[in-house]
Amino acid sequence: MKNLAFGLDIGGINTVFGLVDKDGEIIAESTISTAAYKLFEQYPSYVSDLCTAMKNMLASLDFEHQLVGIGISAPNANYRTGCISTPANLWKYMADGSPVALGNHNFNFVDDFRVHFPDIDTILLTNDANAATIGEMMFGNAKGMSDFIMITLGTGVGSGFVANGEMIYGHDGMAGEYGHVTVEHGGRVCGCGRRGCLETYTSATGVKRTVFALLADRTGPSVLRNIPYSEFDTKMVYDAALQGDAIALETFRFTGEMLGRALANVVTVTSPEAIILFGGLTKAGKFLLEPTSQYMEENMLFTYKRKVKLLTSGIQDKNVAVMGAAALVWQSI
Amino acid sequence: MKNLAFGLDIGGINTVFGLVDKDGEIIAESTISTAAYKLFEQYPSYVSDLCTAMKNMLASLDFEHQLVGIGISAPNANYRTGCISTPANLWKYMADGSPVALGNHNFNFVDDFRVHFPDIDTILLTNDANAATIGEMMFGNAKGMSDFIMITLGTGVGSGFVANGEMIYGHDGMAGEYGHVTVEHGGRVCGCGRRGCLETYTSATGVKRTVFALLADRTGPSVLRNIPYSEFDTKMVYDAALQGDAIALETFRFTGEMLGRALANVVTVTSPEAIILFGGLTKAGKFLLEPTSQYMEENMLFTYKRKVKLLTSGIQDKNVAVMGAAALVWQSI
Repeated sequence: MKNLAFGLDIGGINTVFGLVDKDGEIIAESTISTAAYKLFEQYPSYVSDLCTAMKNMLASLDFEHQLVGIGISAPNANYRTGCISTPANLWKYMADGSPVALGNHNFNFVDDFRVHFPDIDTILLTNDANAATIGEMMFGNAKGMSDFIMITLGTGVGSGFVANGEMIYGHDGMAGEYGHVTVEHGGRVCGCGRRGCLETYTSATGVKRTVFALLADRTGPSVLRNIPYSEFDTKMVYDAALQGDAIALETFRFTGEMLGRALANVVTVTSPEAIILFGGLTKAGKFLLEPTSQYMEENMLFTYKRKVKLLTSGIQDKNVAVMGAAALVWQSI
Repeated sequence: MKNLAFGLDIGGINTVFGLVDKDGEIIAESTISTAAYKLFEQYPSYVSDLCTAMKNMLASLDFEHQLVGIGISAPNANYRTGCISTPANLWKYMADGSPVALGNHNFNFVDDFRVHFPDIDTILLTNDANAATIGEMMFGNAKGMSDFIMITLGTGVGSGFVANGEMIYGHDGMAGEYGHVTVEHGGRVCGCGRRGCLETYTSATGVKRTVFALLADRTGPSVLRNIPYSEFDTKMVYDAALQGDAIALETFRFTGEMLGRALANVVTVTSPEAIILFGGLTKAGKFLLEPTSQYMEENMLFTYKRKVKLLTSGIQDKNVAVMGAAALVWQSI
């Protein structure tokens, strides 16, 4: 008899779900479209179709097994309530095309899953950064650590905080939004409606904005001058940096400076053993990590200097979203 | 038989110690001079004289009692190691007058106390802000809260973070130095050797610096123009604000703005139920609290807006340092 947990990662385009054992091995994995259910009214069908697909996956296994729980990772997810409040990309339009106001509706995700899996006690939901954090703690480079910080550098910037061996969910279940710490008062406009958030500088989009600000500011040549804003991705900056392109190199230095300063600041709160960087941007390797580490140490209070390890994720080449969501279950039982 | 815990507060001038019951009542309290033992070589006599005074206090009680533990609050104290690393004001000079480098020597405080109290298992040490935080959680306005932040606004700015019902000490025992978060890159020089730390703006000293910056910047009349820098205290700014003095009012507005922004930022980490302000500066009442609350909400991510209570301490008029230090014991047993 093999114990298995479902891990689900709900994204704006697809929902990936998989069965994961207690060592983090993904036994089976599949995908359904999230985007096909983009209307508010389609949410019940989405849940029902997803649960049917999950049950089919379980039924297809050719060995004895037991489902011990379901862990779900989603944007705007609240661990304490089990709800997703209207997220930016999901179920956001009414049938008449009018938008559902952001944050105005709570989808009772965990309760809705219970209807389909009445025998499963452990059904847990959290946001993608927290799921990645727990995945890292159970299966990755934070194994055995009681105090660490995870920073996810993707389209946006997410974060997860572990202290005393436990995930910090906060009073309302919404802790760990360090991507929205203000790093530059009156700085760049952010999708959250404020200015100067960390993610406007150190996400993939932030890097792109930095490139274009530098192209506007400087006069020197750069291969990046040949790429329209709309066709741009951060891989191009990395390739340009490899060729020694000055704009690309300065972009990573500046990104590392903003990130390093923000990390030096947050260390004063939880005094972690390590900060683990995760996500697409970390593929820039030393172009990003060296300035990040340099500015982090340069701005660090003496109490913490040279004490905090700066690491990259140990699991991000695997399907960490599914592993992380399943880790929610494994950690709780 | 009454169970009692010792609470000790070690300051640069005096050490206050008291016997506290589990309801936070101080049964007996006394003081010895810390300053009288300011030489590095006097540290052993300090510990020994202090322990003798504590034993005398116990012996003087006229009812049956049992000592259940000793809690100690001190600057630069490390909960995990039980050490105080060379603090700014204590035991800092050698007999020849040469200074002991800050942070270079660890006083094994807890171990040294064990020699004098070999039968007491629970001897705990932490810094003053953490002790105040635990005091607030056990006896004050944070009673029953699992997630809150304490900010102490005194000569410096300290902080304590509680998440999942537990104090965050961090990997190395030195968490909660939010007074040294950088709120203004390249801002005011701080005692820590860096620039722009929160405490350079929102401590008593920070308020004084703001007054003098405003006196330099502006031309209008102010009663504060008659006070030399060296004779200045924040009560004078409060008195001036009561009279409608423009410099005094602007000082509190600016202090509240800097504090409010920093609080909006830190909420993204732990998503607390409340932030509790503690210390001398809170006596400024609405002059400080109103702008702090206003700028905190104005700068808050929508996720947390109007959710976080801003409170003042429920115990600061009592001897919170002694209560907080004793609470360390009561919380652990």
